[in-house]
Parts: sequence; C-alpha cells; structure tokens
Amino acid sequence: MRRFEEREYAARIAATRSRMALAGIDVLLVTCPQNMNYLTGYDGWSFYTHQIVALAQDRGPLWIGRAWDIACVRLTTDLPEVDIEGYADDYVQAATKHEFDVIAEVLRRRGWAKARFGVEMDTYYYTARCHERLTANLPDARFADATSLVNWVRIVKSPRELAYMAEAGKIADLSLAAAVAAIAPGVRACDAAAKVVAAQIKGTPAFGGDVPETIMMSSGAGSSAPHLAWTDDPYRAGEVTAMELGGCRHRYCVGLSRSVYLGTPPPKLRDLTALMAEAMDEAMAAVKPGVACEEVHAVWAAVMARGGYTKKARIGYSIGLDYPPDWGEHTASLRPGDRTPLEPGMTFHMVGGMRLDDWGVQLSETFRVTEAGHASFSALPRALYVKDGSGRSEL
Amino acid sequence: MRRFEEREYAARIAATRSRMALAGIDVLLVTCPQNMNYLTGYDGWSFYTHQIVALAQDRGPLWIGRAWDIACVRLTTDLPEVDIEGYADDYVQAATKHEFDVIAEVLRRRGWAKARFGVEMDTYYYTARCHERLTANLPDARFADATSLVNWVRIVKSPRELAYMAEAGKIADLSLAAAVAAIAPGVRACDAAAKVVAAQIKGTPAFGGDVPETIMMSSGAGSSAPHLAWTDDPYRAGEVTAMELGGCRHRYCVGLSRSVYLGTPPPKLRDLTALMAEAMDEAMAAVKPGVACEEVHAVWAAVMARGGYTKKARIGYSIGLDYPPDWGEHTASLRPGDRTPLEPGMTFHMVGGMRLDDWGVQLSETFRVTEAGHASFSALPRALYVKDGSGRSEL
Repeated sequence: MRRFEEREYAARIAATRSRMALAGIDVLLVTCPQNMNYLTGYDGWSFYTHQIVALAQDRGPLWIGRAWDIACVRLTTDLPEVDIEGYADDYVQAATKHEFDVIAEVLRRRGWAKARFGVEMDTYYYTARCHERLTANLPDARFADATSLVNWVRIVKSPRELAYMAEAGKIADLSLAAAVAAIAPGVRACDAAAKVVAAQIKGTPAFGGDVPETIMMSSGAGSSAPHLAWTDDPYRAGEVTAMELGGCRHRYCVGLSRSVYLGTPPPKLRDLTALMAEAMDEAMAAVKPGVACEEVHAVWAAVMARGGYTKKARIGYSIGLDYPPDWGEHTASLRPGDRTPLEPGMTFHMVGGMRLDDWGVQLSETFRVTEAGHASFSALPRALYVKDGSGRSEL
Repeated sequence: MRRFEEREYAARIAATRSRMALAGIDVLLVTCPQNMNYLTGYDGWSFYTHQIVALAQDRGPLWIGRAWDIACVRLTTDLPEVDIEGYADDYVQAATKHEFDVIAEVLRRRGWAKARFGVEMDTYYYTARCHERLTANLPDARFADATSLVNWVRIVKSPRELAYMAEAGKIADLSLAAAVAAIAPGVRACDAAAKVVAAQIKGTPAFGGDVPETIMMSSGAGSSAPHLAWTDDPYRAGEVTAMELGGCRHRYCVGLSRSVYLGTPPPKLRDLTALMAEAMDEAMAAVKPGVACEEVHAVWAAVMARGGYTKKARIGYSIGLDYPPDWGEHTASLRPGDRTPLEPGMTFHMVGGMRLDDWGVQLSETFRVTEAGHASFSALPRALYVKDGSGRSEL
C-alpha cells in the first residue's frame, strides 16, 4: 500500500542522512507523522499515541510505537519485522510510566546509548514529557534539535508528489464549487458544509480524497475571524461567507479559499476583493526560481497598500504532506524576512485573506514553482462569488 | 457564541482552582485546546500555533496566542480585552525565535516571574521546545506537571454536556446507518465515506454536527489494523469492513463502531462478533457508580476468554470534548490496573474491536454512567451487519 516506488523512499532517506551528517546527528528520531510517512510510508491514524521512526546512517528506518498499531505498519510500509518494535498497551496515556521509557530502552538495546540524537523539539507529537523521559533514560547520549530537518527535505516535491497534489487540486476545485452551489439564503451552513466535505472525499471517478485539516467556513461577523468552522445557522442575504477549503489526496493537501456574497455586495467589499485578486495575480506572476519568499510577499503588499490595506499575518507557507493539526510544512513562509529562494517543485499555499473589524473575505490558492515561473493547482477565477436571491451566481 | 451558561464556566474554573491549590500551583498554563475551550469557551482552529490560557487563583483566565486569532477569541469567549494578548505573526513557526519567548514575557509582566506554574507536560501542544523556552525565560519560576489536571475536572459531565453528547450520539447512529446503506459490492469505499461524513455534518433538522477526529473504515486485510482510513477500492463480496465512526456536536464526541459483511460470513467471524456483542452486553451491565474501570474490563475479558480470545489493547476510555488528534480524554481507561471508580456523569467509549492476523471486526459504543447503571448513546443493535449481493441487509 505504499504510495511511492522504493527508489523514491531511498532518495528521501539519502537526502535526510545527508542533512543528518551535516548536523552531526548519528540517529534521527522522527516524531512528526508527516515525516514518519515520508521516510517509510507509514500511514496509520495512531499519532495520538507516542511513536517514532529512528534513522541512523547505517541502519533504519526503524518504527517504535504502540504494539496495537503494528498491523498498520505491516500494511503501509515495507519495514522488515526486525525493525518494528511495539510497547505494551498499558503504557498508553498512563499516569505512572511513559512510552518513551520503552522507546529509550529500545534505542539503548540497538547500541545507541551514547549516540548523538536529533529530536524534533518543536513538533506537536514530541511533548515536553517525551523529551524529559528520553533524556533521563539516556544519560550518556547527546541531543540536538532537528525540528524541520526532514521538512526541509520535503519542501521540494517529486513528480509523483506533484501528481498527487494536482489530484488534490482538482478535488479542491470541486469542493469549492459544491460550496458555491449550496450556499443560499435559508440553507443551514452545516448542510452546505456536508456537501463540501462529501465532495472532498468523493473526489472524481478516477480518484477519491481524504478530509483535509482545514475546513473553515464562517459568515457575517464570523468572517472577521480566520479559524472558525460552520454553524447550524441559515445563511442570510446581505452576508459574506469566507471559506478556506481544499483537497487532500493520500495526505497531500492543497488549500483553496474563496468568498461568497448573498445579494449585492457593498462597494467596500467588492473593491477589496478586486484588489485582493489583483494582488494575488501580481504576486503569483512574481514567482520564479531564485526569487526569495519575502519578495513575493512584497509584491502582494505593494498592491494592497494602494488600497490602504496591510495584513498582520504571513500570506503563505509551504504545503504538502500533512496530518492534523496543520497542513503547513513549517519551513518557508511568504513574509518579510524569509529569504528562502524559490526552487522548481516547491509548493505554497498563498493566503490573501483579509479580516477587518466585523467582516472579512478569503482568497487563497496553492501553486507550484516551475522552471519558468509558477502553475496554480486551481482552475477557478480569483474573484468574489456573488449570488442573488434567486440562487443565480456570478463572479 | 459560548455553548454554556456563565455559571457553568464559573463552576469549571472553581473546580480547576481547587485542584491547583491541592497541587500547590499558583498559575496553571493550559495548552490542551480542549482544556482552553472548557475554561473559556475558546473555539478557534488555531491550535497549530502556540497558544495558552493562564489561570491563577485570583486572576484569569487569560488568553495568550497569535494576534491574528484574537478575532476568534472575541467571538467565542467573554474574556475582557485586558485578558487577551497576542504575539506578532513573525513568531509563527520561526527558526530564530519562539512564541513562548513572548508568552513568558507576558507572564513576567503580569507579576508571575517567581510563580509556581503548572504545565501540561504531556499534551500535544506543549512541545519540548515550548517547555525549554518557558523555563529559560522564567529562571526564578518553578514548574510542576499538570498534565490532565483539567481533564480530570472534565471527566464528569454536566447535564448540558450530556445533552450535547446525546445529540452527537444521534448523529453517530445516522452516520453508521449511512455507512451500512452505502456499502455494497462495486461501490468505492471513498464514496461510502463521503456519505458517512456528510451525515456527520448534516446531523438532523434540529442540529448539525462537526467532523469527529476518528473516521476509520478498512476492509479485507485492512480490517486487521485499527487505524486505517478508507481507500478508493471498491467493496467486494466476501469481505468484512470494520468501521470506527461517531458523531461530534460542539466538539463533544461520541464514538460508535460496527462492522459490515458482504455475503455470507464465515462461521468464525459470525461467532466472534456474537461473542463480542455478548461481552459488551455484560460489560455494560456491570457499569454502575462505584465500580472500578478495571472491573468492567474484567467482565468483558471473561466473556471473551470463553471463546479463547484475549485483546492487547484497553477496551475503552473516557471521552467528551475534543480536538485533533484524539477524542480520548487521557484520564480513565477500561483496562487492568485502572482503579478509577465510576461516577454518574462520566462518559466512556467502550471499544470491543478484535484484530486478528488478516482480518478484524469492530464493535464500540459510547455510554454514560447513571445513578442506576449506564445509558448508551446509541440505539443500534450490537451485531454484525450482513448484506447479501442484492444489497439487502440483516443483523
């Protein structure tokens, strides 16, 4: 059930080992589920329990986790049995002992008691307690921060990864279209959301999808906030709905945002969305290999400044393989100060949403960097969707 | 937009302060999104960035997070402006500075430089780096582990919480029924999953739902693993599909699992599911106030032993308010050694799924402890669903 050929996993592991060598790391302990998947193919929804993939220069990857999940390892990876180790179930969320006591013991048994480990210090699934137990159990080892080490390998996507993201992009467009079709006065937001998520999972006749992390849909005053989900309330004429949707294929995510207005939009809202579209057009046009992330941001910000607008938040980030809670890759961001040069095969979610005091509008799109410039994963026009009372829609 | 009355939040805060006092904690730093919601109502999908709720005996709760998310705080809590603090966006996932540098500075400014803090050491959203930065920035403070301190307050649900869980239970039943209706030979699993999740969000005419954390659907050999999602593959006659579904209402979750067999189930599978149903019947019947969690497990295990079956994993856990990645409450578990006595208002997801070498079946249900015994949140029969080639289903 692995999603990539053996040689692609081998290339990922080689690139990771190269970075490990540069950082002086003997054994990398990977706790970020995306990174575990990237190196081994492991794709179980088990990251709510502590688990790791260990990689040394001459051995591994090795999976250590809850014994109950070993069936998931066997079905989604090609790891040999000798490189799969499980801990007993009474360690799960126990008050008096910890999973990393066992993990440390396995590492010791493998001969790594004095190794220099790389640990992902700022990864959701490497808690303060995990680090405390690991370091206490391996007093002769050394520990270096390897947060985002594998993420930086992941930032340039392979052709096969880009193909999955292209599929996710098609799904994202379909889910956005489902939202626009469903939103109408009197319709409950939850009923529209049901159609959106069904479209995300159903996909196309050729391929289905997963549920992406982020499904934000908020209307009226709620549109002023970036991270709210739908409610039971019916849509009302005279309100804007700001949506951050997307598609997900084999856990590769593509974000996509648009807004819908029911009725005749006020001039300020219409003008702002037109400016946002122009800013995104120009920022996208600035994308090409060698350009720094902050330069793309600067182009966007210059257009918005013509309307007197500034934005507190970054306007994008690298995106790709993901598990909850974040589809961002925790590497490069489109913001001032980020000098990362764009390279072909990088993929970013550009988020041009604006949140004002009591309303907001969303506009976002995911693109890849090409040799010549960029290519968007969406075929939708960059504009506000306007629906009048009859349900007719226009851009 | 808060889901509970002011006095309910006040009671939660009072109970938390009582536990803080017993533990000698001056200021509790809450990083678990469920706990932040529980104490303040905060309900933004922003926990992928670092954020906390701080609670002292005489002050707070105070929200400190990404400035971009303050709109979510204003819309979902009643916190006064003076108790909301945001950090600048260039701290988000930055390589050279950290969100907890700012959070520590806010805590110092509030007069807590020498406080004894409680921190949730083993919570997903309190990473090793968070703890390192916090302790480095507050050298005169002391730190105690407060993992699950609020979770233990949450374990007994209020009438309003139970009402939300009852709604989630109705949604869970509807989503399971949608799965049974959709699964048939030749139907792609992703198309069935789309109907399941649509049912979870659409809910009933009276209330909608959210997407619960766990939506596991795996068939054939995949049913041997507990944590796999659907694929694009069509269902085939002669295969079992094991499902762990559920419902979610205002982030209160109810888990529900059943299995579907297409065709005539082999005797071993039919006998096992009959035994699992009997074990769950007996274990549920053993639930009443004062009984220990491990005693419920023992009843279940005794029935299963009659068929020669044992299970590596716990058979249940406290469940309720949740955010990704886990709907389990990280408090009491139904397993040997857990002496937690059951109390009225506690809610558990009892998971009787069995995973054999190359197939498995699921059966789970969520119940509440009552004064007299228990009440299930599901009205569905505890049995294997069997569908023949015509799509007709029986239990």
